[in-house]
Amino acid sequence: MESIIPVTLPHSSYSIVIAPNSLNEIGPRLAQLNLGKKILLVSNPEIFSLYGEITIQSITLAGFEVITHTIPSGESYKTLQSIQDIYDTAIENNLERSSTMIALGGGVIGDMTGFAAATWLRGINFVQVPTSLLAMVDASIGGKTGVNHPKGKNLIGAFYQPKLVYIDPTVLKTLPEREFRAGMAEVIKYGVIWDRDLFIQLENAESLDNLQFLSDDLLQTILTKSCQAKADVVSKDEKEAGLRAILNYGHTIGHAIESLTGYESVIHGEAVGIGMVAAGKIALKLGMWSEDDCQRQDNLIKKAGLPTEIPRDLDIEAIIETLKTDKKVKAGKVRFVLPSNIGTVSITDKVTSNLIRDTFEK
Amino acid sequence: MESIIPVTLPHSSYSIVIAPNSLNEIGPRLAQLNLGKKILLVSNPEIFSLYGEITIQSITLAGFEVITHTIPSGESYKTLQSIQDIYDTAIENNLERSSTMIALGGGVIGDMTGFAAATWLRGINFVQVPTSLLAMVDASIGGKTGVNHPKGKNLIGAFYQPKLVYIDPTVLKTLPEREFRAGMAEVIKYGVIWDRDLFIQLENAESLDNLQFLSDDLLQTILTKSCQAKADVVSKDEKEAGLRAILNYGHTIGHAIESLTGYESVIHGEAVGIGMVAAGKIALKLGMWSEDDCQRQDNLIKKAGLPTEIPRDLDIEAIIETLKTDKKVKAGKVRFVLPSNIGTVSITDKVTSNLIRDTFEK
Repeated sequence: MESIIPVTLPHSSYSIVIAPNSLNEIGPRLAQLNLGKKILLVSNPEIFSLYGEITIQSITLAGFEVITHTIPSGESYKTLQSIQDIYDTAIENNLERSSTMIALGGGVIGDMTGFAAATWLRGINFVQVPTSLLAMVDASIGGKTGVNHPKGKNLIGAFYQPKLVYIDPTVLKTLPEREFRAGMAEVIKYGVIWDRDLFIQLENAESLDNLQFLSDDLLQTILTKSCQAKADVVSKDEKEAGLRAILNYGHTIGHAIESLTGYESVIHGEAVGIGMVAAGKIALKLGMWSEDDCQRQDNLIKKAGLPTEIPRDLDIEAIIETLKTDKKVKAGKVRFVLPSNIGTVSITDKVTSNLIRDTFEK
Repeated sequence: MESIIPVTLPHSSYSIVIAPNSLNEIGPRLAQLNLGKKILLVSNPEIFSLYGEITIQSITLAGFEVITHTIPSGESYKTLQSIQDIYDTAIENNLERSSTMIALGGGVIGDMTGFAAATWLRGINFVQVPTSLLAMVDASIGGKTGVNHPKGKNLIGAFYQPKLVYIDPTVLKTLPEREFRAGMAEVIKYGVIWDRDLFIQLENAESLDNLQFLSDDLLQTILTKSCQAKADVVSKDEKEAGLRAILNYGHTIGHAIESLTGYESVIHGEAVGIGMVAAGKIALKLGMWSEDDCQRQDNLIKKAGLPTEIPRDLDIEAIIETLKTDKKVKAGKVRFVLPSNIGTVSITDKVTSNLIRDTFEK
């Protein structure tokens, strides 16, 4: 059982490989890519202790020289300082233009390793080995890399494409349950914005809130369809000029919630879940979609064990203020992605502060 | 008198405008580019005090909102810290994705502003207004941006193309003479590697070592032909996969000299001058070009008032060691650009440490 999804971009094309129990076969896969001899493997201590050895062994056996660099876990280390630490390891080990950086970890490790690869010697090879569900279906695909600024998430970064995204779904068995559910939010998102079939398969699944109750086949299908959705969208719009904005479905209010709660009490996928429910309510208020579809979406989000309500202690005015500093603001207007059918969304700037107040005030 | 040189790249095309006495007309030129309303003008205090006001006035009159940010002069400020300072100004002023950063200054300001623009919100608009001869004919064209790592120059950076390069040659009248001569080294380089006509025009010029003795016409020709040469080369090889390496003519030994002398006693253009003379000697030793051509090149470098000898206190072994850490090292081999005729160079990895010893040891 192996899926290969090609991502075709004007300047660089690469494959997403989804292959269970395959971390010990990554070396030969890398050997096909015309990479230089040196590889810098970047990870965090937890992931590295679980999967570092098997990865390094396979890469070394394939003839590469591997150097490792670990960064403590967590969003608070997603800083320029951590990037500087990677640069220091790169120079100590004479990384050349033909060398490769591999990200072994979740979204934070992927974003940072990608940014370091994008900016070391003006760009060296980069490979993603995502180990969280969120990173597998979202962060590792599409070339967004970067770090946080003290005043905002992902404000510093670059578009930089990997040479390969290598997914071994088996590693999800060590992912904390809460993070698994958070990743499921992005999977549901693809169902709403792009792939009605995926949505229906998720509805029909026995359970969504725990990996144990997902068959290997269904997991492979979920990963393949999600990665395919993301690949479809980014292939059509590499640098977020238009279509790609639909991937922000649920993220506008989601980001505001994360920002106002300090990125810890509500984690990204949870915030996206709440954001999708909120966007659904707004779309309903605007008469853009049906009560029935709205209900189906909310049920699926609940089925995944995700929260659906904006935290009670958050003031709606604070959310409105935070929306105004969103990166996606264009000429001062907040642009919202709203659903019109399951499988279809559109982008609108009709969502006024007053509409948000009306929708969420008791 | 105005030259417009189009730079055509697969993904982004832009123009180099060379127009004397035109800094007060930059606003309308920017207004043609479909830029957002906000502009962050980055400069250093000296350049800003000379040309800030006239530039801001023209930009403001054209309907833009201008914010300014200055960075102290000099290579020692070409650091990630200075980039962070630009980010801070960007966030304080809510720079959006449609906003623009303009570099008003020499190569250091251009490289840093370009890197900040490349990495702020994963890339915003960028315009170069080079004020030194070196920046006009070299640094501002081709999309190389970046900063220094404590252990090496330009190790951190990105390829990022400007929307416009706007050159007003009149500003060169305030450029220190030593810097003017240093810039002339790159002009001579284009003559050797690409444009035999330019080389001959430089030979025929009355004087090259002082702007005062250059007619406006000759200056315009020199700038136009140099920018055209650089544009030709980078258009054919945006990301330095092949041809672009010829632009490093004189830079391999040049960089080693700069690095070993701490980037101050020998400035970049001077190091390139010495590097071209050295490369010429090596090419002569290899029987790749004639004594006559070698002599003509050395005469031109002297005519520009540039040094031609490796500083006496530098040990040739130290230079050889430094070459091994050069960014252009490929699989451990130093690749040299060597001339074969005036107007033509080739790339070789035949230059061994022993050959360098033989060429330069007394």
